[in-house]
Amino acid sequence: MFERVAILGVGLIGGSFALALKEARVCTHAVGAGRNSANLKLALERGIIDSIAADAVAAAHGADLVLLAAPLAQFAKLFRDIAPVLGPKAIVTDAGSTKRDVVAAARAALGRKVGQFVPAHPIAGGEKSGAGAASAGLFRSKRVILTPLPENSDATERKVAEAWSACGAHVMRMDPEEHDAILGAVSHLPHLLAYALVHELCAREDAPRLFALAGGGFRDFTRIASSHPEMWRDICLANRDRLLEELKKYGRALDSMAKLLEAGDGAGLEKVFAEARAARERWIQSS
Amino acid sequence: MFERVAILGVGLIGGSFALALKEARVCTHAVGAGRNSANLKLALERGIIDSIAADAVAAAHGADLVLLAAPLAQFAKLFRDIAPVLGPKAIVTDAGSTKRDVVAAARAALGRKVGQFVPAHPIAGGEKSGAGAASAGLFRSKRVILTPLPENSDATERKVAEAWSACGAHVMRMDPEEHDAILGAVSHLPHLLAYALVHELCAREDAPRLFALAGGGFRDFTRIASSHPEMWRDICLANRDRLLEELKKYGRALDSMAKLLEAGDGAGLEKVFAEARAARERWIQSS
Repeated sequence: MFERVAILGVGLIGGSFALALKEARVCTHAVGAGRNSANLKLALERGIIDSIAADAVAAAHGADLVLLAAPLAQFAKLFRDIAPVLGPKAIVTDAGSTKRDVVAAARAALGRKVGQFVPAHPIAGGEKSGAGAASAGLFRSKRVILTPLPENSDATERKVAEAWSACGAHVMRMDPEEHDAILGAVSHLPHLLAYALVHELCAREDAPRLFALAGGGFRDFTRIASSHPEMWRDICLANRDRLLEELKKYGRALDSMAKLLEAGDGAGLEKVFAEARAARERWIQSS
Repeated sequence: MFERVAILGVGLIGGSFALALKEARVCTHAVGAGRNSANLKLALERGIIDSIAADAVAAAHGADLVLLAAPLAQFAKLFRDIAPVLGPKAIVTDAGSTKRDVVAAARAALGRKVGQFVPAHPIAGGEKSGAGAASAGLFRSKRVILTPLPENSDATERKVAEAWSACGAHVMRMDPEEHDAILGAVSHLPHLLAYALVHELCAREDAPRLFALAGGGFRDFTRIASSHPEMWRDICLANRDRLLEELKKYGRALDSMAKLLEAGDGAGLEKVFAEARAARERWIQSS
């Protein structure tokens, strides 16, 4: 049971976390802080939070659970802000899409209190953002990756795992390096690819004509290009070494496709397509 | 009203065309032909077709409407097969995703009868294939692009337009060159990109671990990588000059993204992401 949960950034993720904890009846009071007062007001009206704090410091004051759910570039300041007011029993977690940078920022700002922070990344989201998009079921049956620190006590780690489990998520553990490598490949790269495609097309003179004939495949392929630009700016910068590596690998894969096309190698193309389809079908069936 | 509609290739598209015409009560009898007898049997059981023909020749014999809905590489032979049995009042259309090659194949095979063929491309589909995936509503409110030939009479063109309209589709007209250029950009390229990503990842040693952490964004981005490999082999080959051009443009867009990442240019990245999101949102709202 958490008496006071501080949500720093009451958007899709932060708002859904609060709603899920309330639905699970493990949160007595949720207090929100953030940059956008209209969004905080909406969160209050929707019953996502029970009160609005003037800032992160005020929100974290007296909280027994703090969630950082703002775009990543704000994390360093948020950690610094809350460090002095963090009580000895308070635990902190986050929802950042990268983990190496978050761990480094926490370590730099929290000092001896860093053991109270258990990094987390819920593999859930959507292209809609803000408190208006939040829902209690967002994390249900989704994975949440914890990248615990050596400084975390078993009890602290367990409490954070229980909070995410209360949201309906499946909690797993991994080190931050592996997390960022994997997510760079299966999440950050596809976002960059989708943004790049839509951007390349929308800059053309005949863009209206192009979009007029885009169908359902294009809509799904580019859904993630409707994601929050600031959030994804921060993710791409935070994980840019990995992302650049992935971009290079992908560039080589596209070169291979171009060679098959140039050679008119139908059998080669079909083999690639069939292998990709089979792999994806296996994944869909197992997930 | 069509007395006998011949469906050459009773898959997702061909089957849905037959179902839609029946629902609109403009088709008395649908006869199917194809390579896969189990699929044809399923189509018969589902009431998609009323009879199975031994081959395309037998199906087209006596038909007043013929639809070619097989993978593109089969079109040349199908046109040659049906040419001799095509009655003077019969009209022919197709559902091929490219149009320059289809027009060339029709012209080569149909001779003086080429005026009876009105090329069409329904902008509808899905990653599921076969008669089992067909549905009467597949084309409802979707666009169908006709690329009429100079040899088409107004009456023939109108009859084909009416058939697709009866399926609930919005019919528009375009020349084959423009069609292939636009679809290369908004359909064929995204399919190639999705296949390439899944293929590149599934070939890695740690593929199971990668896929285990792939989320909803990855699922939607790669949905089209579950599309029919043979069908997409044929489309890519048929439109390969355009597709190679699009791949080059996209490669340059990815190079720009890599430069922004290397420079740590957050403002530049956010600008690209925001412009892409805005363009996509405009498109979603207008479509």
